[in-house]
Amino acid sequence: LHFASDNAGPVHPRVMSALLSANDDHAMPYGACPWTARAVALLRETLGAPGAEVALVPTGTAANALALAALVDPWQRVFCSDIAHIHRDEVGATPFYAGGAELALVPQTDGRMAPADLAAGIAALDPERRGAVSLTQVTEAGTVYPLAALADLCATAAAAGLPVHMDGARFANAVAATGCTAAAMARGLTALSFGGTKNGLMGVEAVVVFEPDRAHGLAPRRQRGGHLFSKHRYLAAQMVGYLEDGLWLETAAAANARAQRLAAGLARHPDVTIAHPVEANMIFARWPAALHARLRAKGAVYYMMDSAEGAPADRPLLARLVCDWSIPEEEIDRFLGVLAAG
Amino acid sequence: LHFASDNAGPVHPRVMSALLSANDDHAMPYGACPWTARAVALLRETLGAPGAEVALVPTGTAANALALAALVDPWQRVFCSDIAHIHRDEVGATPFYAGGAELALVPQTDGRMAPADLAAGIAALDPERRGAVSLTQVTEAGTVYPLAALADLCATAAAAGLPVHMDGARFANAVAATGCTAAAMARGLTALSFGGTKNGLMGVEAVVVFEPDRAHGLAPRRQRGGHLFSKHRYLAAQMVGYLEDGLWLETAAAANARAQRLAAGLARHPDVTIAHPVEANMIFARWPAALHARLRAKGAVYYMMDSAEGAPADRPLLARLVCDWSIPEEEIDRFLGVLAAG
Amino acid sequence: LHFASDNAGPVHPRVMSALLSANDDHAMPYGACPWTARAVALLRETLGAPGAEVALVPTGTAANALALAALVDPWQRVFCSDIAHIHRDEVGATPFYAGGAELALVPQTDGRMAPADLAAGIAALDPERRGAVSLTQVTEAGTVYPLAALADLCATAAAAGLPVHMDGARFANAVAATGCTAAAMARGLTALSFGGTKNGLMGVEAVVVFEPDRAHGLAPRRQRGGHLFSKHRYLAAQMVGYLEDGLWLETAAAANARAQRLAAGLARHPDVTIAHPVEANMIFARWPAALHARLRAKGAVYYMMDSAEGAPADRPLLARLVCDWSIPEEEIDRFLGVLAAG
Amino acid sequence: LHFASDNAGPVHPRVMSALLSANDDHAMPYGACPWTARAVALLRETLGAPGAEVALVPTGTAANALALAALVDPWQRVFCSDIAHIHRDEVGATPFYAGGAELALVPQTDGRMAPADLAAGIAALDPERRGAVSLTQVTEAGTVYPLAALADLCATAAAAGLPVHMDGARFANAVAATGCTAAAMARGLTALSFGGTKNGLMGVEAVVVFEPDRAHGLAPRRQRGGHLFSKHRYLAAQMVGYLEDGLWLETAAAANARAQRLAAGLARHPDVTIAHPVEANMIFARWPAALHARLRAKGAVYYMMDSAEGAPADRPLLARLVCDWSIPEEEIDRFLGVLAAG
Repeated sequence: LHFASDNAGPVHPRVMSALLSANDDHAMPYGACPWTARAVALLRETLGAPGAEVALVPTGTAANALALAALVDPWQRVFCSDIAHIHRDEVGATPFYAGGAELALVPQTDGRMAPADLAAGIAALDPERRGAVSLTQVTEAGTVYPLAALADLCATAAAAGLPVHMDGARFANAVAATGCTAAAMARGLTALSFGGTKNGLMGVEAVVVFEPDRAHGLAPRRQRGGHLFSKHRYLAAQMVGYLEDGLWLETAAAANARAQRLAAGLARHPDVTIAHPVEANMIFARWPAALHARLRAKGAVYYMMDSAEGAPADRPLLARLVCDWSIPEEEIDRFLGVLAAG
Repeated sequence: LHFASDNAGPVHPRVMSALLSANDDHAMPYGACPWTARAVALLRETLGAPGAEVALVPTGTAANALALAALVDPWQRVFCSDIAHIHRDEVGATPFYAGGAELALVPQTDGRMAPADLAAGIAALDPERRGAVSLTQVTEAGTVYPLAALADLCATAAAAGLPVHMDGARFANAVAATGCTAAAMARGLTALSFGGTKNGLMGVEAVVVFEPDRAHGLAPRRQRGGHLFSKHRYLAAQMVGYLEDGLWLETAAAANARAQRLAAGLARHPDVTIAHPVEANMIFARWPAALHARLRAKGAVYYMMDSAEGAPADRPLLARLVCDWSIPEEEIDRFLGVLAAG
Repeated sequence: LHFASDNAGPVHPRVMSALLSANDDHAMPYGACPWTARAVALLRETLGAPGAEVALVPTGTAANALALAALVDPWQRVFCSDIAHIHRDEVGATPFYAGGAELALVPQTDGRMAPADLAAGIAALDPERRGAVSLTQVTEAGTVYPLAALADLCATAAAAGLPVHMDGARFANAVAATGCTAAAMARGLTALSFGGTKNGLMGVEAVVVFEPDRAHGLAPRRQRGGHLFSKHRYLAAQMVGYLEDGLWLETAAAANARAQRLAAGLARHPDVTIAHPVEANMIFARWPAALHARLRAKGAVYYMMDSAEGAPADRPLLARLVCDWSIPEEEIDRFLGVLAAG
Repeated sequence: LHFASDNAGPVHPRVMSALLSANDDHAMPYGACPWTARAVALLRETLGAPGAEVALVPTGTAANALALAALVDPWQRVFCSDIAHIHRDEVGATPFYAGGAELALVPQTDGRMAPADLAAGIAALDPERRGAVSLTQVTEAGTVYPLAALADLCATAAAAGLPVHMDGARFANAVAATGCTAAAMARGLTALSFGGTKNGLMGVEAVVVFEPDRAHGLAPRRQRGGHLFSKHRYLAAQMVGYLEDGLWLETAAAANARAQRLAAGLARHPDVTIAHPVEANMIFARWPAALHARLRAKGAVYYMMDSAEGAPADRPLLARLVCDWSIPEEEIDRFLGVLAAG
């Protein structure tokens, strides 16, 4: 009954196999190995971007901060939603890597910025201080920007001459949910944090910069940030295992399907309110404190957005439940059974 | 014939087993898992430091920079040798993490700073700007500070009220070479970068701060640096596999022994000069360019400290050869055979 | 007809005299001179803070950034209003000086944060990331926090263990408007940017840290920021001239009185709407674009908060008018005459 | 008998007059005033650089750090001499402003780097990390690079594609000593810190960037560093008074002449050894501790490079004596008289 996060699940067996098969003999360090060449080629191919700069890093925070540090000057701001991961969850990684660059918060609805709000935010800031736009796909509210919405946001940024970064920690889930190609999802982006860790890898994300002349400093910043792995083949092999044979979309589709099953079950319960449209593998929903307490007692693990401490039994509290590819359908049904018994 | 680096070798099978055995079911992320608790306990026990703060990170650069950022203020300097890894190989990670803190270079002989030179460097700097001392064990020249030398350096630092950091990327090799305990090797240190990657792990180092009140900011700096792994159990499991049952000393002793065998063979060759005492698993030696060319042609891989380009055939060029635990003795003998045939 | 800013006015003649009288013979540089000792003593006496740390700097941005850098860690946030000068007008000086520390914006009404809004902002942030509270007095909307409101905000901060900084670029105007002592106005503060430039000086502000153990790094940060003046006596002499004989309150009271006269005249005009209570020397008011155009044509200089470009003649546009001590009453009356003639 | 520093002297009366004449009525702030336009025009004219970017700042540390931050990336190093002011006296201002960029020290003789040593330093560093060359004129040892030496250093930098910065805190003294034009002295430079404070101003230096496309970020960095003066006319008026009518060369020539007179007198004393050629307005010389003690007792003020504390009476100690334009010849002769009486 573990729905805390998609980073709580195991590494996919095919990724483990890829690691084991890479674990033989010596290999030149720091990326000068065939696994890295293969991973880079697969990323470029997958994203339809043969000239893109690629850097593998172990965490999403590193990917976002390195990508944005390449795009903005220290005295500029990054426009992002007011619930963006780079704002709320990365302890200032972007200002740290980007020499003090600040964020400029844009309102969102269900996690999505509206182009008009982004435009207003841009207009309100001195042109010299406008740095880049960062959007998150799947959003932090579990929704997915349709391709047309992405195009509008990219056009808004382009009208102001701004590059666009996508925090794609759950890029795979968004592609799987939309049914488009990765290249279509990346259209208009200057840089992408291409996630893997939340979708079956041990700990690998790729910084992809589509316009190589915007990648200035990506390599030295990665190294001085401590993110250049000496035994680089073990990052690369994971990414190869992820992209080869389409594993990345298999696991993402599985995670999305599990979340739909769970959301459908939750929605049937009279005390549950779904807070945001469930479009990928995350569910935000409210139900009374007493019901939370009972579920916890039965072993359910998920993340509380509201504090449960001291809440009256009938107060609805917001929870976040995330499914990864590894959650068996039986677990979901067992959770729903416990819920229904309430 | 691969002597390029100890980070070019494979992950030890027992470490791979530890990873596989951790790869089951869900685990709370960000270090809230039993593997992390076990790794921290083992590190404290190994180092005889029950109260030490511990943070696992994936690279030695991250470990050094995070440790030093905790010890110094942005306007201070870190005293280190003029061939220190933090000076020559980390692209400014220490100033980056420590808010612009600079290094103050101290001369070394065979990689080792003399206490008098350290004292002179300290005396030459405004007290307000004296931040910390960082020494490397095994040194960058492949030598090992004896315990008495460490004690002298620590006393010199202590006399100026300065904390001492050890870059222990090859800490295990130093302990194995010295035959002392890890606790004895760490005596007098304020912080230690406890290496694992060069000695059989996939990519894990531990920042250990022995005086917890000097660890201010270690956790948030790790996170904003992008080094807090969500699937933290995979860092921790490696460290557990490394420390449990003494694997870390086994591999280090093996690497040291291989280097001794290789060094002994090299020393027998009339054209070879050993540049620094070989005390752990690294060899610095000079031989003529023509001999280098022939070895390369036979498939030998090692690192040139001098450029071979355009060098006359008889010019002696400095090379670095490193052995890890995985180099078979036959490989060494085969290399020496090729050499002897020259 | 110059109401653009209180930094557009001349240096007060008594301050010029102080500079001239300091301009004799040699004096030890970097603050080791009698003028500096006198300035520090006067600041401590004026603020009733005999143990305060004091550093003179040339600009308000430097004062704010240095004060806040002393109070927060790089991974923390500074709570301030959403129109704070440190947020909107200093191009990221606070994150720059404070190693990347971000701001956390709190809503305001007429420039003033409500304690409940501050408390909510604090509660919403991870305790580890809560750094300091910064409030502006006179506010950026031209209002003045009453002493009771300051006490409430300080109590809110204290309840969370947070230090409080005051951006006092117009501290003198606030003291003059309130009729309290400087010490009463500073009660509860950890640090103060004590302004002078906007009130008759050439370019001097004082960073005052009331709790000396919170002043860690103030001196070296000032120096590495390039704000330690070698010919320090010329900063100090201005401050001496400012504080001795109460010039600072004279000029502030004069500026406030001018603004009241101007505001009263504005309020009488049927097309003018005063936007915020006029409590010190700044006026925010709206009147139609056509009227703005006519005033400009007659030589009036003030700052437009709304863009006048392309605005229809009858659209009310927000303007800011600031009086300093040097504006003659006749100028104000002349401006009001032009306005009335419209 | 005040030879501590050229920043211990008064402001030149003609500069004071310029300040007083600017102190009338209102002026638009932040440089949008006629004084600033005039100062910029005069600097461009003086340096023969009609297209140069110019920014006025109050201190030499600010000028150096802002200039270098414009020239280098955070992961690069600045080559400078091992006694450079940016290395020894600015508490890390360059790494602070340049996002962590480090210095690479080059040996010097009498303060001057040799082109071959600079070339060796450049060659030893990874090309990606080579940022810029910074040289000081007048050097920190009181010598002056001849134009031919500057040309050689600039050619060495150019051969590596590196920009060249000159710390010209005493640029005027160097021009006066050499007898060349300012433009000739600046030939080959990318950026110049054009000093004024040590030569009769109250506190103004100019950052001059000769290649405007290398000035990226100069303006916002100045503002976020807290160096954009609101009452900018008072910086500008000083510079106008300095450059108009050639005051800057008059005062520099006077200071140099005083130093020659002093040096000649010192050299005549049997116990005095001149440490470096006296080519501008600074003298480094050694004489016995007992003689120092007697001079001090007679009221002489100068800077000890060696510590006098506990030194035996006959130990020669290094002292630095600096003359500014304001030192009367009688003072020098009086000092020499005291010395001779010893």
